[in-house]
Amino acid sequence: MTISLSPGQTSIPAKAAVAWGPGEPLSVETIDVALPKAGEVLIRVVASGVCHTDAFTLSGDDPEGIFPAVLGHEGGGIVEMVGEGVTSVEPGDHVIPLYTAECGKCKFCLSGKTNLCQAVRETQGKGLMPDGTTRFSKDGEPIYHYMGCSTFSEYTVLPEISLAKVNKSAPLEEVCLLGCGVTTGMGAVLNTAKVSKGDTVAIFGLGGIGLSAIIGARMAGASRIIGIDINDSKFDLARQLGATDLVNPTEHDDPIEKVIIDMTDGGVDYSFECIGNVNVMRQALECCHKGWGESVIIGVAGAGQEISTRPFQLVTGRVWKGSAFGGVKGRSELPGIVEQYLNGEFGLQEFITHKMPLEDINHAFDLMHRGESIRSVIRL
Amino acid sequence: MTISLSPGQTSIPAKAAVAWGPGEPLSVETIDVALPKAGEVLIRVVASGVCHTDAFTLSGDDPEGIFPAVLGHEGGGIVEMVGEGVTSVEPGDHVIPLYTAECGKCKFCLSGKTNLCQAVRETQGKGLMPDGTTRFSKDGEPIYHYMGCSTFSEYTVLPEISLAKVNKSAPLEEVCLLGCGVTTGMGAVLNTAKVSKGDTVAIFGLGGIGLSAIIGARMAGASRIIGIDINDSKFDLARQLGATDLVNPTEHDDPIEKVIIDMTDGGVDYSFECIGNVNVMRQALECCHKGWGESVIIGVAGAGQEISTRPFQLVTGRVWKGSAFGGVKGRSELPGIVEQYLNGEFGLQEFITHKMPLEDINHAFDLMHRGESIRSVIRL
Repeated sequence: MTISLSPGQTSIPAKAAVAWGPGEPLSVETIDVALPKAGEVLIRVVASGVCHTDAFTLSGDDPEGIFPAVLGHEGGGIVEMVGEGVTSVEPGDHVIPLYTAECGKCKFCLSGKTNLCQAVRETQGKGLMPDGTTRFSKDGEPIYHYMGCSTFSEYTVLPEISLAKVNKSAPLEEVCLLGCGVTTGMGAVLNTAKVSKGDTVAIFGLGGIGLSAIIGARMAGASRIIGIDINDSKFDLARQLGATDLVNPTEHDDPIEKVIIDMTDGGVDYSFECIGNVNVMRQALECCHKGWGESVIIGVAGAGQEISTRPFQLVTGRVWKGSAFGGVKGRSELPGIVEQYLNGEFGLQEFITHKMPLEDINHAFDLMHRGESIRSVIRL
Repeated sequence: MTISLSPGQTSIPAKAAVAWGPGEPLSVETIDVALPKAGEVLIRVVASGVCHTDAFTLSGDDPEGIFPAVLGHEGGGIVEMVGEGVTSVEPGDHVIPLYTAECGKCKFCLSGKTNLCQAVRETQGKGLMPDGTTRFSKDGEPIYHYMGCSTFSEYTVLPEISLAKVNKSAPLEEVCLLGCGVTTGMGAVLNTAKVSKGDTVAIFGLGGIGLSAIIGARMAGASRIIGIDINDSKFDLARQLGATDLVNPTEHDDPIEKVIIDMTDGGVDYSFECIGNVNVMRQALECCHKGWGESVIIGVAGAGQEISTRPFQLVTGRVWKGSAFGGVKGRSELPGIVEQYLNGEFGLQEFITHKMPLEDINHAFDLMHRGESIRSVIRL
């Protein structure tokens, strides 16, 4: 432990980037972080990626956004203190916070069919810990949690069931990206779609998720990996990671789905939407091969937006599905993915275009909005 | 053979119900049926079910409808004459015409992933035989084929690859229903969804397809089979076939998807849309269980109609797919389904509410429009 407590002390100070309201820049200041209650864990955040989902909530477009809050959900940290009854981690353990918990006991965990544990979902969606309260405050006023993680803070508190304990030799500044983006993209390909050797794949949107999907497709042995983006500057890295074809829809007169169908003699075996654009979701479905093509939605659409297509697309054999956190059960499966990384099965450094201290976090958001970064990693 | 030909004779007369134009009643008259060319087979139709798809095309709402045509696609018949090179059937064989051929050679047949053989699709869609001509005429003017079957005629001609040879001991007046409706409903449950023992199932629409889906769900060992229809008169037969719960949406204030979710502690494992109503397709998806529920579209929607939902429904684990002819490969799999019928594994007589001669075929359409029949079988 790096912190020492006085008798009766119930909180510690922490430097954090606070989102006071929608559309406002984050404000880096010192807040109070309460000590963990039963079943909870205090962690020191070492690094956190900045993800589009953070920006989506900060913009005010997220109807479930709650303010003031500490954002950030793609982190890596070290356990500082455990609450009563916590047995699966201890101080000094390296952990990746999970916005999708894994209790191992709920109907969902026991189904063997999904990673969407519901144990803490309700309170998490309200920015609260499972007991219905928050551990963050400033001058006695509550500040809310975000996606159950709040990694834009030196210290944060999570339920024990929301922490994946990982190999200490893995650099937290890199494997923090496995807390969201990279796992989401790779997992959608490997777990949700189950792409096989020789399959053809189209990936719409070459941000962090899309590039991770390329990595997953390469690991699966896909014969063709078609990357699609309206921003050509993404193409070099996409090719480096394994894309075999790169298409800019703005350079074609035909609709992109027709371009892909023509390129692949009828369509791809699997497609992935990594943007959150409902029109692209339709294109991704409709570029799939008749009879068996499957399209996986990964991107998060704006509030109230809907996808649509002619049912004929499905009746003629296409399948439309979605993926959250790559179908990965965090506590039981993420440690193995970290091992794969340590074994050199895939890279993470390619994703990290910028590293910066917490004080510069608004710059990281600017870079992301301008499409100039893949991932900025904040060092805390 | 029951027909004898004069030297040089190139066609035979046949009594047929001709659809001269959209919205007109069928006209029973004698037409000319040309003898089979290479790779083709002339069959004498013994019986044919009347299906909603026939009515859809006759109504003029089917954008691909072609007139004049001989409708009918749910038949059973006996081979009368084979064209050059035909080896898989011979005169006297009992056959079920297939609107989804099985060539065994195309990319689709060889994929192992779909039953949607494309070998004759293009010409079939134009009401023609694979050589681009029609075998039907009246006073020298062409009459078109329908779904590659045209079973509302004493004699019809099909490609060899569009015929399933079945056990001669199976009554054609019953197993004709396996040419469309019953196979479509049962197959969607058993092949497309692959429902397992103990699963919960919701079936929207209790016509011939929906009732067949109930049979499939019972054969699969589903623990709950919820039938949904706005017409209570369907409920007795549905219960007899295996439905455990029956719901009339008009008797509930809540939307039907909420009713089903409440009945099943979160939603069903599988749902089936057996109507062709795009709004019901959405309800069927949204009554599926978060994390793993799958919805299968079987019904055929009107031209230009679209399905829609929030992508969140898919990202949280639901799967949207479709099924055509129950995912069944006609030539290789339908004979086995006929054997299952002969073994008493499911019934067909329950579906046949009316039998009548070809002269009364317009009455069969009237009964169907009024919801008074499940299936009328036309005896030819």
